[in-house]
Amino acid sequence: MSGKNLLQEACNQTTYQLAGHGKRNMEVLKEAFQQIDGNLESDMYGSGKVIEDFQEKMAKYLGKETAVFFPSGTMAQQIAVRIWCDEKGLKKVAYHPLSHLEIHEEDGLKELHHIESVLLADTKRCVQLEDVLILEEDVACVLLELPQREIGGQLPDYNDLEAISTYCREKGIKLHLDGARLFEILPYYQKSAVEICKLFDSIYLSFYKGIGGIAGAILAGDEAFIAESKVWKRRHGGDLISLYPYIISADYYFEQRLDKMEKYYEEAKELAGFFNACHAISTRPVEPVSNMFHVHIDMPKEKLEKILLAIYEETGIGIIHYLRETSEITCYFEISIGDRYANIPKEELRDVFQLLDERMKKM
Amino acid sequence: MSGKNLLQEACNQTTYQLAGHGKRNMEVLKEAFQQIDGNLESDMYGSGKVIEDFQEKMAKYLGKETAVFFPSGTMAQQIAVRIWCDEKGLKKVAYHPLSHLEIHEEDGLKELHHIESVLLADTKRCVQLEDVLILEEDVACVLLELPQREIGGQLPDYNDLEAISTYCREKGIKLHLDGARLFEILPYYQKSAVEICKLFDSIYLSFYKGIGGIAGAILAGDEAFIAESKVWKRRHGGDLISLYPYIISADYYFEQRLDKMEKYYEEAKELAGFFNACHAISTRPVEPVSNMFHVHIDMPKEKLEKILLAIYEETGIGIIHYLRETSEITCYFEISIGDRYANIPKEELRDVFQLLDERMKKM
Repeated sequence: MSGKNLLQEACNQTTYQLAGHGKRNMEVLKEAFQQIDGNLESDMYGSGKVIEDFQEKMAKYLGKETAVFFPSGTMAQQIAVRIWCDEKGLKKVAYHPLSHLEIHEEDGLKELHHIESVLLADTKRCVQLEDVLILEEDVACVLLELPQREIGGQLPDYNDLEAISTYCREKGIKLHLDGARLFEILPYYQKSAVEICKLFDSIYLSFYKGIGGIAGAILAGDEAFIAESKVWKRRHGGDLISLYPYIISADYYFEQRLDKMEKYYEEAKELAGFFNACHAISTRPVEPVSNMFHVHIDMPKEKLEKILLAIYEETGIGIIHYLRETSEITCYFEISIGDRYANIPKEELRDVFQLLDERMKKM
Repeated sequence: MSGKNLLQEACNQTTYQLAGHGKRNMEVLKEAFQQIDGNLESDMYGSGKVIEDFQEKMAKYLGKETAVFFPSGTMAQQIAVRIWCDEKGLKKVAYHPLSHLEIHEEDGLKELHHIESVLLADTKRCVQLEDVLILEEDVACVLLELPQREIGGQLPDYNDLEAISTYCREKGIKLHLDGARLFEILPYYQKSAVEICKLFDSIYLSFYKGIGGIAGAILAGDEAFIAESKVWKRRHGGDLISLYPYIISADYYFEQRLDKMEKYYEEAKELAGFFNACHAISTRPVEPVSNMFHVHIDMPKEKLEKILLAIYEETGIGIIHYLRETSEITCYFEISIGDRYANIPKEELRDVFQLLDERMKKM
């Protein structure tokens, strides 16, 4: 068994875990459907009460004319960018070098849509106004991911966001929000979803990150944009006869967790503090701006693994289930706070970090 | 309320209905999950026991090296064709003019993959050996849909199938099976899935037609083909974090209904006989070769609607929930036999067709 699996195995055996809502198992679906009337009809290729009601609810929540439910964000975002590129007759989009579209989608945007990416900012920080101002090439669309996940979930200042939005509108550049974690950033900005979304022409959001649903996404925008996105949804093979398993669960967990985003954010700041107090450990950002952050450790992956395995065994608290090497002597992992964190007794939590600090110092 | 909705409404109110398994409602999911252990882990971006076991089971059932679960057939088939076209360096596929890819996918194959279609046969009959032999253009792939749904579910002779397969192999043309209704044709051919599938290089099959699942599809073929299809699945946005709602239900209803295909086929022949005995009504094919057929009526849609509404009211048996105009004086509908048909008392069934025949004659 590989080291990664050992850690995952050990973490699964603990009583408490720091990250996430809980196990991704069948119970997630069963709970969401428990109170659902068996007679409620399925959606049917994008029509029907189940899908239409939820789309309307989300459009209203985001302050957009209309919205459409997609099986995945990968599909929704490629399509959004494609529509804006077609409208302008220019197959170029600008986004962060660590955008999901650039590194996690097997180049679908390039291979399927033949759209070129222009990279903004660098891999260490998030996009700022300056990066957009100095764009040398004309683009049809700028895509901003809030928070920028691959750098620990960093966010630009709200003023920067506003300025980017104003600039793009002046220049005839469409602004698209990769809002996979939109719910999670509202407490930091102290803004409503409507206030954030009015800066953007189109918005994607996900239901299996902070919301903890099974899968699925919403794409929102004006009527013409969404009508066209439905044609592309069919072309991509995303216009399934029934999407209700994802819709019902998205709605169920949206209702359960939307109001907890502030709590997750506060807990993330507390937990980052615990990590930063440990020898050779630092979080990125130092103070989280959402429910997520990265933890960087100045220690080889194998050494840290041994420390963690012992701590899980001794305390029954699982810190993380995997580690990723960043060099031969450093590694990191990602934490997203969900329902689990609040279940851990504070005393035991302090003990586990005291222990971690001691063990780190000894190595 | 439109005529179509009136008929649907009335049909929904009847005690018995001729077509289908039952209502497409939440109960379909709830039943499939009732005995599923809540602790069973979700699949995770194409990995995990739930998805891997089912893929292996289907590969074995089809007699292919390996298989991959897709959210939709639209996605699976475009990808299959794309892989064969890339392999040959020729962006041309030959299929029937009423193929799903040609008429139901908003031209995804052309718009996303830039693949040209060469049409085989004509819109009245299914593809035969002769159509493939006289192809004037070289193509990378021939796609056969068995049965050809849009012409009532017709099938070529098995000898023709074998000959097409042999010819394509000799010519270096890949043969792909649109097996959306593969399970449903086995009783007519008196062949196993393995025997049919060995004629093809790649196979798609669906779980929400005869099987009656929620959605989802399998694509099967050799290892290299399937490995590449997974890359394209991600590009299309089909590599969802969790596909288990579709997989669990596909497996559940596969187990329930696979052995009933012979019965559905026999019932389809019986039911087609009832229709053909009615004045001004004929089925296509006259004798069904699967669980499906089309019913053509020499009467304007509006007139027939009135007859049907009265019959539903009087007998409590719903014949069909929609009608489609084929001209000002003719219309048609499609019947697929499922679990419902066997529930109708034979006496009442005979009465309803006697009544239909009488009313048709009177008009």
